[in-house]
Amino acid sequence: MGDLSKQPGRLRPAPENFLTEEQVKAVAAGRRDFLRKSFMAAGAAMAAPLAARAAEGDPAILNLPEWSKTLGMPVALNPYGQPSKFESQLLRRESPGLARVGQASVSFAPLQGLFGIITPSGLHFERHHQGWHDIDPAVHRLMVNASDPAFLKKPKVYTMDDLMRLPSVSRIHFIECGANTGLEWGNVAVPTVQYTHGMLSCSEFTGVPLKLLLEDCGVDYKKARYVLAEGADGSSMTRTIPMEMVENGEVFVAYGMNGEMLRPENGYPLRLVVPGVQGVSWVKWLRRIEVGDKPYATKDEAVHYIDLMPDGMHRQYTSIQECKSVITTPSGGQRLLEKGFYNVSGIAWSGRGKITRVDVSFDGGINWQQARIEGPVQNKALTRFNINWVWDGKPAMLQSRAVDETGYVQPAYGQLREVRGTKSIYHNNAIQTWKVVESGEISNVQVL
Amino acid sequence: MGDLSKQPGRLRPAPENFLTEEQVKAVAAGRRDFLRKSFMAAGAAMAAPLAARAAEGDPAILNLPEWSKTLGMPVALNPYGQPSKFESQLLRRESPGLARVGQASVSFAPLQGLFGIITPSGLHFERHHQGWHDIDPAVHRLMVNASDPAFLKKPKVYTMDDLMRLPSVSRIHFIECGANTGLEWGNVAVPTVQYTHGMLSCSEFTGVPLKLLLEDCGVDYKKARYVLAEGADGSSMTRTIPMEMVENGEVFVAYGMNGEMLRPENGYPLRLVVPGVQGVSWVKWLRRIEVGDKPYATKDEAVHYIDLMPDGMHRQYTSIQECKSVITTPSGGQRLLEKGFYNVSGIAWSGRGKITRVDVSFDGGINWQQARIEGPVQNKALTRFNINWVWDGKPAMLQSRAVDETGYVQPAYGQLREVRGTKSIYHNNAIQTWKVVESGEISNVQVL
Repeated sequence: MGDLSKQPGRLRPAPENFLTEEQVKAVAAGRRDFLRKSFMAAGAAMAAPLAARAAEGDPAILNLPEWSKTLGMPVALNPYGQPSKFESQLLRRESPGLARVGQASVSFAPLQGLFGIITPSGLHFERHHQGWHDIDPAVHRLMVNASDPAFLKKPKVYTMDDLMRLPSVSRIHFIECGANTGLEWGNVAVPTVQYTHGMLSCSEFTGVPLKLLLEDCGVDYKKARYVLAEGADGSSMTRTIPMEMVENGEVFVAYGMNGEMLRPENGYPLRLVVPGVQGVSWVKWLRRIEVGDKPYATKDEAVHYIDLMPDGMHRQYTSIQECKSVITTPSGGQRLLEKGFYNVSGIAWSGRGKITRVDVSFDGGINWQQARIEGPVQNKALTRFNINWVWDGKPAMLQSRAVDETGYVQPAYGQLREVRGTKSIYHNNAIQTWKVVESGEISNVQVL
Repeated sequence: MGDLSKQPGRLRPAPENFLTEEQVKAVAAGRRDFLRKSFMAAGAAMAAPLAARAAEGDPAILNLPEWSKTLGMPVALNPYGQPSKFESQLLRRESPGLARVGQASVSFAPLQGLFGIITPSGLHFERHHQGWHDIDPAVHRLMVNASDPAFLKKPKVYTMDDLMRLPSVSRIHFIECGANTGLEWGNVAVPTVQYTHGMLSCSEFTGVPLKLLLEDCGVDYKKARYVLAEGADGSSMTRTIPMEMVENGEVFVAYGMNGEMLRPENGYPLRLVVPGVQGVSWVKWLRRIEVGDKPYATKDEAVHYIDLMPDGMHRQYTSIQECKSVITTPSGGQRLLEKGFYNVSGIAWSGRGKITRVDVSFDGGINWQQARIEGPVQNKALTRFNINWVWDGKPAMLQSRAVDETGYVQPAYGQLREVRGTKSIYHNNAIQTWKVVESGEISNVQVL
C-alpha cells in the first residue's frame, strides 16, 4: 500500500464529490468553460437563475427524474442501513507502508469527506497491534485487581451484564492516536488530510466511570496512585494511567459508541475511554484493570509512544494530546473548481478541555481571521469551525490555529521544532498548511 | 408482519443482551438458582469476587481465550465497518401492519438497545410514503421559487456542489414522526419500546440554513410568510413551514448526518431539517422550496397529521413535538434477571427547546425522584437520563416525566385525554408506564 496513486478507486473528495465523470474530466483538462456552462455559476455567484437553467434545457429541471415517477424500495429491505452507492469511495484507507503486516497497521478516517464532529462508526480510524477480534460478550470478563492486596479490598470479576446494570455516563470525546501527523515531523510526507490527520475520530461513548468500579472493589486512593489497563487481544497491550484522571470521574469503561455497542475493531465489547489522552491508552477489548503505586513502564510505554528530544533523551508519559486543528475542506489532493465563494471547514480539539477559538489564515500565517465555531462545543471533543472565503484564483496558503480553554495556542512548525526537534514520531500538533495554486490544485506544504 | 411473535429472530434486548443461550433458557424457566450460580451475583452485590470466580473454575478467568493467543484480523478488511456479529438482532423492525405495502410503511429504531443520544445511522427509523430511492447527487437539484414573483427576486436552481460550497452549520437534533406512540391513544397496542416510541432518532445534521438560500434568492420577508417544501420521491410529499421558523436560522437543508452524507432511506442527498417539528416536515430528497403568503393545505397536511378532537373537529398544523420522555431500559418485553441494582435509563426531548429535568417514578406516579441527566444537553435534541434503582422483587410501575425549558411538564394519559380525547393518531406525548411483575417480566400498561 506504499504508493498512494495505486489506492483502490479514485480519491474524489469534496468539493468535487458530486460532479459527473464528464465534469471531472473537463476540470482535470482545464476546460473551465465546460464547467461554467455546465453549472451556470459564473464568478462568485452561487447557483443558476431558474429561467436560465430552464432555457438551457437542464434535463434535471425540465424532466421529472425516474425516482419521481416510480415506486421506491420498501422499508427495512436492509434492516441495518448502509451508505448510498454513490459514497462508495468514502472509506477508511490503509497506511502507506507504516507497518509490515496488516494486523499491526493503521486505517485512516477520510476527514476530507466528513462533516460536523461525529465520526460515523463505519469510518472510525483503526490502529491495531495484533489485529482485531469479534469477541463473544457472553464470555468476556473484566477483572479488577491490585499489585498489592493493600491497595484494593475486594478484587472482582465483572461480566458484561454486571457492567451494563451499573450507573452509566454518555459523553462525546475525540480519540487521536499519539502518532497522528507523525510522518510530518521532518518534512511533508503524505498528500491528503486522510493521511496527515486521519488517525482521529470523535464519538459519543457510553459506559461506567472507572472510579465507580474501583470504589466498588474498595480501592485505597492514598496508596493506589496508578492504574494499569490491559487488553484481551494477543498484543498484551498495557498502559499506565495516573489515578488523578480516574478520581475526577472522566475515565470510563465504555461499551457504547454512537448509540450502539462498540464496533469489533474499536474494542467490542469493552474499551477504556481516557478523554484527552492518546488513543493507545484507550485500551480495546479491555479485560483487566490493576491498581498500583507507580507507573508500570510497560513495553508499550517504555519503547513506544515516547518523544525523542533534540538533546537525544526520550520524553516518557506525555500522553495528553495538546490543542490542534486542521482544515479538512478544501485540503490536500482536492481541487478548487473555480474562483469564487467557498465554505472553508475544519476541526479543532484539545486534550485539556474545550476549544475557545479558531483563527484561519489564507496567506500562510501573515493575516488571521476568526472562524465561526458551529455546532456543539464539548469538553475534549472535536469542534467544527467554518469560515467564508472568496478565492480570487491566485496562489494561497490555508492554515488554522486553535486555542483551548487553558489559553494554549496551537504552535507553528518552527515553534514546535524549536522545543521538540525533528526526530519525533508522536505528539505533533503543529499548524497544517494547504497550498492552493492557480489551477486550483491543493497540496500539503510546511510553513515554519 | 402483523404478529410480533413472528418477527424474524428472537428479540433479546438489554439487559439480557449478553447471556448465553443456556442462561436465557434458565431464566425463562424460572431457574434463578442457575443464574445466580452462573453469575455469582447474589442479592444486590454486583460482580463476583475474584477468588470465588477462580475457585468456581470460570473458564473465562482460568484460561486465556483464543483471541488472546492468536493473530487478529487485519485493518480495513472491511473498509466500511459493520457491527459485531453478536449484535445481529439489534435491528430496526417493520411496523406490525401499519400500512398495506412495504413501500409506504415504517421501520422502528430499537430504542431498548441504544445508548446516549446519537442514533446510529444504520438504525435510524424510516417512514416512507412511496418507498426510498438512492438518488444520484450529480443530477439532483434544489429549486427555490415563489408562488408570486413579488415574493422572491431571483428564483434559482442549486446543484449539490453549489450547496456544499455555502456556509454550513452542524447541529444535533431529534426527529420524531408525528405518529410516534400513535397506536396507544385508546389502549395498549404494542409490547416493546421499539414499537411504542421507535419512530424517533437523533443525529448530528450538517447543512445550509434555508434563510441563507432564501436571502440569496432575494426573498421579501414582509410578503413571503410561508415556505412549501417538496420531495423528489414519487409521493410528491409537500409540507408548509411558517417563515418564522426559517427566519430564526433553525431550519436548514442538510446533506450530512452523523458525520457522513445522509443515508438514502433518510433523504440522500438532501433533506430539510426543521428542529422540534414532526418528521414529515423534514422533507426527504428535497427538490424544491417555494415561498408563499399562506399555508398550502396540501394533501399531507389537510388529511394526514391532523388531530381529531373530542368535539369531532380536526386540529391542523400542530406540528411541534411537545415535551416527552420514555424509559428505554428496562422496558416492555425485557425481563429483570434478579433482584438488586439496576441503572434505569431513558431519553427525553422537546420540540420547544432544551430538557431541564426528568423525574422517574417506580410506583406508577405516586412518588417521583429526580433522574441524572448525563451527557450533552442540546436544543431540540434527545437527552439521556439515568437513575439508580434497587428492585426488591415486588411488582413495580416505571414511569418518566420530562420538563422542558419553557416549564412545560409531560402529561399523564388522563390529562392528555381530557383535552385530546382518544381518537387521535398523532402527537401523543403522554407518560409511558412499564409494569414489572414478580417474575421480572416487563410489559406495557397505561396509567391515567
